[in-house]
Amino acid sequence: MEKTLQMNTNSRDQMIDITKQIEEWMQEINANNGMIIVSSLHTTAGITVNENADPDVKTDFLRRLDEVYPWDHQLDRHAEGNTAAHMKTSTVGHAQTLIVSNGKLVLGTWQGVYFCEFDGPRQNRKIQLKMISS
Amino acid sequence: MEKTLQMNTNSRDQMIDITKQIEEWMQEINANNGMIIVSSLHTTAGITVNENADPDVKTDFLRRLDEVYPWDHQLDRHAEGNTAAHMKTSTVGHAQTLIVSNGKLVLGTWQGVYFCEFDGPRQNRKIQLKMISS
Amino acid sequence: MEKTLQMNTNSRDQMIDITKQIEEWMQEINANNGMIIVSSLHTTAGITVNENADPDVKTDFLRRLDEVYPWDHQLDRHAEGNTAAHMKTSTVGHAQTLIVSNGKLVLGTWQGVYFCEFDGPRQNRKIQLKMISS
Repeated sequence: MEKTLQMNTNSRDQMIDITKQIEEWMQEINANNGMIIVSSLHTTAGITVNENADPDVKTDFLRRLDEVYPWDHQLDRHAEGNTAAHMKTSTVGHAQTLIVSNGKLVLGTWQGVYFCEFDGPRQNRKIQLKMISS
Repeated sequence: MEKTLQMNTNSRDQMIDITKQIEEWMQEINANNGMIIVSSLHTTAGITVNENADPDVKTDFLRRLDEVYPWDHQLDRHAEGNTAAHMKTSTVGHAQTLIVSNGKLVLGTWQGVYFCEFDGPRQNRKIQLKMISS
Repeated sequence: MEKTLQMNTNSRDQMIDITKQIEEWMQEINANNGMIIVSSLHTTAGITVNENADPDVKTDFLRRLDEVYPWDHQLDRHAEGNTAAHMKTSTVGHAQTLIVSNGKLVLGTWQGVYFCEFDGPRQNRKIQLKMISS
């Protein structure tokens, strides 16, 4: 079973909690046991699992990543000028694997699944979901 | 097949080799072929695969990560003050996927699986293991 | 189904696009639906999914990572002197999971799969491929 989520982003760096969209899809397909791969189909946007409670974590997270991989860099050669977005994507990962048990995502109390935009705003960002039953 | 490993940690940053615990569980369940997802159920502790020989690698690893994501940061807004732990978790990953072949983990000579504590010491850290047979 | 890719690298840091080798193997085994785990069997070389178009992205990528994790570091204790390579490997990840749908890798237009050498040049680097059908 597979599904493509589409979304628009509205700033250069943005974390969007997609946990509920994944859970809704699991209900649609009657997901039971196995795993789900959540995969960004872009090279300047990734997926990570992190805190879903205090929104300040997202603010800090994006600012800290930006300090490690600053947008402007004298030595960058890539003509599009978005090397930093490529770095951030490989750092958090283009995809994550989630455990599914008895119809539910196995996540800790504070864990949420995030689509991470690193080169927005963009229309029509795509995330592929794939369920593998066990 | 699934199992929850529980462990206590005893310093703020700590790497604990859990390879043997995974292998013991594989024997219990007669794991044969497929994959295992190893997933931290926390947002301030992750999983990585790295060197299991020289213990200095762990010391260097944790110090280097701390330099990239220092614990204290003037601009952090997250009230718990552990933004650095969230950064490190998403950098190494909250989970890893391991190949299982003929009853054994497919790892290189020097590879071990580590639980990475980034906001310890803590009681009752949880790691979920899930076997998907192929 | 499983396969070991072998390769030689010719510089300390190098990204090698292995997408075609994975696709060729998929044809050999008549891969249909499921996922493929692509796993480096080394602690100083990883796998990432990133841009396959402009070669300058690779140049920028490796230089940026080197700035974050410089090769020489006064405080490193690991006698082999390659702590930076261990850091880079855990940052990009030792392995990636790819979705397979109707016999094809589900990747975005610009996504390619890279073997990332961080401590070359080396002979006989090994990458394990594992197909899990769904």
